[in-house]
Amino acid sequence: MNYALIFKLIGNLLRIQAALMLFPLAVSFIYGGGDHLPFLWSILILALTGTFLTLLKPVNKNFRTKDAFATAGLAWIFMSLFGALPFYFSGYFNSFIDSAFESISAFTTTGTTILTDIEVLPHGILFWRSFSHWIGGIGVLVFMLAVMPSMNASSINLLRAESTGPLPDKIVPKIRETAKIMCIIYLVTTVVLGVLLYFAGLPVYDAVINSFSTAGTGGFSRMNGSIAAYNNVAAEIIIIIFMFLFGISFSLYFFLLGRKFLKFFKDAELKLYTGLVVAAIVIITINIYGIYGNFAEALRRSSFQVVSIASTTGFSNADVGLWPGLSQIILALLMFTGSCAGSTGGGIKLIRILLLIKATRIEFIRIFHPGSVKAVSINNKTVGQDIVSKTALFFFIYFVILFWAAVFITIEGKDMVSSVTAALSSLSNVGPGLGTAGSNGNYSSFSALSKIVLSFCMIAGRLEFLPVLVLFSPAVWKKIPRKS
Amino acid sequence: MNYALIFKLIGNLLRIQAALMLFPLAVSFIYGGGDHLPFLWSILILALTGTFLTLLKPVNKNFRTKDAFATAGLAWIFMSLFGALPFYFSGYFNSFIDSAFESISAFTTTGTTILTDIEVLPHGILFWRSFSHWIGGIGVLVFMLAVMPSMNASSINLLRAESTGPLPDKIVPKIRETAKIMCIIYLVTTVVLGVLLYFAGLPVYDAVINSFSTAGTGGFSRMNGSIAAYNNVAAEIIIIIFMFLFGISFSLYFFLLGRKFLKFFKDAELKLYTGLVVAAIVIITINIYGIYGNFAEALRRSSFQVVSIASTTGFSNADVGLWPGLSQIILALLMFTGSCAGSTGGGIKLIRILLLIKATRIEFIRIFHPGSVKAVSINNKTVGQDIVSKTALFFFIYFVILFWAAVFITIEGKDMVSSVTAALSSLSNVGPGLGTAGSNGNYSSFSALSKIVLSFCMIAGRLEFLPVLVLFSPAVWKKIPRKS
Repeated sequence: MNYALIFKLIGNLLRIQAALMLFPLAVSFIYGGGDHLPFLWSILILALTGTFLTLLKPVNKNFRTKDAFATAGLAWIFMSLFGALPFYFSGYFNSFIDSAFESISAFTTTGTTILTDIEVLPHGILFWRSFSHWIGGIGVLVFMLAVMPSMNASSINLLRAESTGPLPDKIVPKIRETAKIMCIIYLVTTVVLGVLLYFAGLPVYDAVINSFSTAGTGGFSRMNGSIAAYNNVAAEIIIIIFMFLFGISFSLYFFLLGRKFLKFFKDAELKLYTGLVVAAIVIITINIYGIYGNFAEALRRSSFQVVSIASTTGFSNADVGLWPGLSQIILALLMFTGSCAGSTGGGIKLIRILLLIKATRIEFIRIFHPGSVKAVSINNKTVGQDIVSKTALFFFIYFVILFWAAVFITIEGKDMVSSVTAALSSLSNVGPGLGTAGSNGNYSSFSALSKIVLSFCMIAGRLEFLPVLVLFSPAVWKKIPRKS
Repeated sequence: MNYALIFKLIGNLLRIQAALMLFPLAVSFIYGGGDHLPFLWSILILALTGTFLTLLKPVNKNFRTKDAFATAGLAWIFMSLFGALPFYFSGYFNSFIDSAFESISAFTTTGTTILTDIEVLPHGILFWRSFSHWIGGIGVLVFMLAVMPSMNASSINLLRAESTGPLPDKIVPKIRETAKIMCIIYLVTTVVLGVLLYFAGLPVYDAVINSFSTAGTGGFSRMNGSIAAYNNVAAEIIIIIFMFLFGISFSLYFFLLGRKFLKFFKDAELKLYTGLVVAAIVIITINIYGIYGNFAEALRRSSFQVVSIASTTGFSNADVGLWPGLSQIILALLMFTGSCAGSTGGGIKLIRILLLIKATRIEFIRIFHPGSVKAVSINNKTVGQDIVSKTALFFFIYFVILFWAAVFITIEGKDMVSSVTAALSSLSNVGPGLGTAGSNGNYSSFSALSKIVLSFCMIAGRLEFLPVLVLFSPAVWKKIPRKS
């Protein structure tokens, strides 16, 4: 592996992180609360470490697939660990493991917390938690756009990659240009959301925090009762709409910018996403009607929870643990499937599910017409057999990791439902689970081992496995690769 | 579809079933209990319907893949429904749905019951329940041997098919000869088991019943407390050994007959099966040690439950619902993975899991060596990419059916754990679930809809999906296929 080059890149990232930390520092000066020192120390450490790493002089300029993967995996781990410093220095967290868990949960846009009382924390720290969601969100967008397709690993992203950018140029400038436009869309949408939340009646600070968390489909709130604490229907409706929007593939927004409305509305993944969300809302509203006793209330809770989980945000306005089995299992399904590929959301991704359903149908046709050469196609584009195969294996890996994570969590004595849903929720970057891992995604009762396992799930799920699993392969750590 | 030919074949099967019902009839005459009339009526109906169907004169002799699939699916459904007649006529079952559920559970070798008090039933009826397990067991062996490989659908069975028979002849006589030897092995092992159980102290009748249920990896017992009711350690040890043996691929026993011991012990699937079972026993014994307070007792319960579930038999000698989360999740995993392909056991089958794990590893190698053409191989045989793809899709279909079944079961108000484990247990033909679907596999509390859904799962799982799913496809029901 090209260590020098990889750590030089990570050094650059850490310097950027140091700069980004100036925002929460400013917030802590504005609102007080005594959390400016933690940020000052963290910025110092980040700047020094970052600068030290950028001094590395890579002799070899070779940057292979595995180097790119390892860089992605290490970048998320380093940014999370350094991002945990302000939490740790603030003294509000019991241990560095707790701080790291919170930070990983933030950067992976998961939104599970180990805090039991969020509201006592100073403004700067809470700002940094949600801001990390936002950074993680744009991070994953750029990562999926730039690293994954060129590495030909998550071939699923290639399905739309060709039609992504508005510029029919060469590949590198196209990606750079696309990433730039993507960042602008992300920034503008976040600002619009923040302004709307402010007009809906939220205080400026809360509007900013919640728009960061919504944009990154993260789910951190500044209230112990999550969004339900505001009891503000207008804000809930705004958040529902924006959670849904951030669960849509960003490449589709390029179609809108290019006025290709038909291409937007005819997208197969978007149709599935919309269909699933609407169907889930209808069924759950009917199913929980009896609990809330009135239709509007049931619709309010179900639509919020469904979109929150389908987009893998993880905000909550109801205690799902009290809902009937039917509602719970539908929400569990939405945790699995998640949002659209190329959004800030997590999960298996709907386009993969769509692909597997279509591939299964093709298998059936083969029984009736043994000679059939019909291939899977999505959005009128043929999908190769190797992509089908990789996608099906992705589904398998998802379950293998889910199972192992749940096994490790049960070791501390947690029941099966809590363990499985906590692992599932972390792997899909949702946040809350069921059972002990309650509706607000509070994981304070978990052991250190479980927190480490869940942290692994969050990062593995966020980067779609390969970049993280690669780090566990001894072959990657060889200094001079013989063949490649 | 070639209706005439299909129903003629099913007519033949029903006549065989009529003949097989003479055994429980004899038992009912020997032990009394007043259940001879239900059997006499059932035999009459079976013989008449069977004979009527065999009178069909198929004009067309064409028998296509889809015809074979539909025949297999319909055969299991018809045999189960007609097999339910004695239950229904006996008056011990509340409805025909209950009788059919019990019969489907028997023929699919699942072993879930809707009876609350098994012990009040007459000997003939209980004999028929377990005998149906036994018939279902040999049925699935022959089905997997004869129908699946020639249809090239469950290509997984082809992995060993080449080396299955001891006779290197042409394909048809080879399958016929292989099936014959298979039946003899099945019969002899069942007799040996029955004799051993008798010497271990079980009454003749109980020894026979339990050896039928063990051979078919079914799980029906004549006691409300399953095998635990005998409190007979020797019998438990014998049953553990034979459950394990019936979970092994029968094609491996051909190696033993041919004195190819090395091929037997080096089989990759057998090694995985043994490894999983041993590992699960060790972990669960340690995990439940605290509950039973002594090592021998913990080992007794854990080894019995592990082998019972890994072989998908479903006998029980402990209330697993009281065990810790870790033990439960390991048992849940064993329900998924199940036994070896080509055994009487159910589940996803370990060879599929092995194949997917190997395929995943190959994917990793491709990241490091993008040009690598390394292929998956099992037992030193290369596995084609299409088989990997089909296997991965099988895994996907398994989860889709599991999810939908669980959704339908929650409609009646069951909690998520009960619904999911009931569906899982039925789909893998195990029997007991967790939650409401308690350790003894009693499903009496489920609604009619849930019973129908679970029945579907049992048959779909038993026939590995395609033959059953094909029945739901309108294309199959077309009378004259235009193309094929």
